Amino acid sequence: MKNIVTLAHETVVLTPTTREEQQEILAIETPYKIALNDRDIGASMVLETALEEFGAGFLFGQGYVRSPEEVKEVLVCPEGRISVYADVEEDAEPKEVIITSGCGGTGKISREMLEGAFDPLQECTITFPEIHDFILAILHGSRLGHDTHCVHGCGLWADGRLQAFYEDVGRHNAVDKIIGAILLKKIPARGAVYTTGRLTSDMVLKCARIGIPIVMSRTAPSSLGMAIARRAGVTLVAYARPDRLNVFNAPERIVQDI
Amino acid sequence: MKNIVTLAHETVVLTPTTREEQQEILAIETPYKIALNDRDIGASMVLETALEEFGAGFLFGQGYVRSPEEVKEVLVCPEGRISVYADVEEDAEPKEVIITSGCGGTGKISREMLEGAFDPLQECTITFPEIHDFILAILHGSRLGHDTHCVHGCGLWADGRLQAFYEDVGRHNAVDKIIGAILLKKIPARGAVYTTGRLTSDMVLKCARIGIPIVMSRTAPSSLGMAIARRAGVTLVAYARPDRLNVFNAPERIVQDI
Repeated sequence: MKNIVTLAHETVVLTPTTREEQQEILAIETPYKIALNDRDIGASMVLETALEEFGAGFLFGQGYVRSPEEVKEVLVCPEGRISVYADVEEDAEPKEVIITSGCGGTGKISREMLEGAFDPLQECTITFPEIHDFILAILHGSRLGHDTHCVHGCGLWADGRLQAFYEDVGRHNAVDKIIGAILLKKIPARGAVYTTGRLTSDMVLKCARIGIPIVMSRTAPSSLGMAIARRAGVTLVAYARPDRLNVFNAPERIVQDI
Repeated sequence: MKNIVTLAHETVVLTPTTREEQQEILAIETPYKIALNDRDIGASMVLETALEEFGAGFLFGQGYVRSPEEVKEVLVCPEGRISVYADVEEDAEPKEVIITSGCGGTGKISREMLEGAFDPLQECTITFPEIHDFILAILHGSRLGHDTHCVHGCGLWADGRLQAFYEDVGRHNAVDKIIGAILLKKIPARGAVYTTGRLTSDMVLKCARIGIPIVMSRTAPSSLGMAIARRAGVTLVAYARPDRLNVFNAPERIVQDI
């Protein structure tokens, strides 16, 4: 079943002296609870797409689930619950939690995650012709973004093609859906992520922890997003355009035509 | 003491065939704990400005503090703690919490808040000349936004002038600073709020609960942001420009020149 994720609304466009009716399209945000092994962990507003991916990615972002091997099954109940079943210790509980800044739907990370060491990334490089195709595929693929101006998109490019593209009302949720797809073994973790959102600490941290070596954004990173990229060795690209990248860390994974 | 909120970073701008060094400015996000009557409630990444306001507004957004009368004192410890002292019941604990979608730093609201009734708003209207001055003051006032592309701004206009303008790495945090300023009685709650961020559920909910009658954004609302505005009777304006507003609810508070 495909969920309905937008609704039309009549608005009034006002200028100092005119008044005109207009129809706008709104993105629908819906609250979902996320449960791990039948225990409620949290609840989040979400765009009702790729909910299995979101559930798994949400629990990764919060520190409950750590690898694809742990995730066994995800069931979505349309009444508003995503049930993730995973082979983890029952009392696994993240340490002190920080609500993250920036645009953060599922914006919580533990201090432990922020300060811990990183496993090696899944190495890869990307060429400019690939970057060109990747960014255009995302920008042209987002009908919902164009209609509502209220969603963020996140895609993963690997092995010469766009492997997945997800959207959500939250920039974090969109990244969580990519990470969930990796956890559910639908896409590889080696490759490049492109997000329309800003690269604050938690955004970069999630990608680094799952092993993604290249993280690109249409817009800017924060200081801590940058610091995490440096510690983890992630290639951090901001203001990414099809033919121009501003590389904040580890440019050696970007292959030029020279 | 004025905190340092940006840092410079050397980046490499790559095109398919060129490579050029460039300096970029990053917004600094810093983790702060927020305590209520010496009990730690949460922690959030924050831009180190207006931390007293942020602490009070954060606790309002989370449902711990409800009115200016309750807030007694806010102390900021530069090592990373904002201590709010308020006349509230010690065991006041929000009901089931939803992590909110969209760009949400302090993005948590309780289901109770989402479904509860609203107190009457603090009535006011705004004219087009006021809107013009309001929006230009905010757009021209944000040096930080221009430098970093990584902060959201939020301002409040009342009694014919810009009463306050705050910025933060998170769009929620910037609104929390405005709400905190109201709680600390630095600015009135009647008036119009303008935010550079999207109007998702929690953004509109916070403003409605503190009594702000007019909520404007540079960009779009979500479905639930709209639904809350309708239930609370808030004037909801999207895609706000100095001479053009797209009004999603209650246009009667916008005074035209006709």
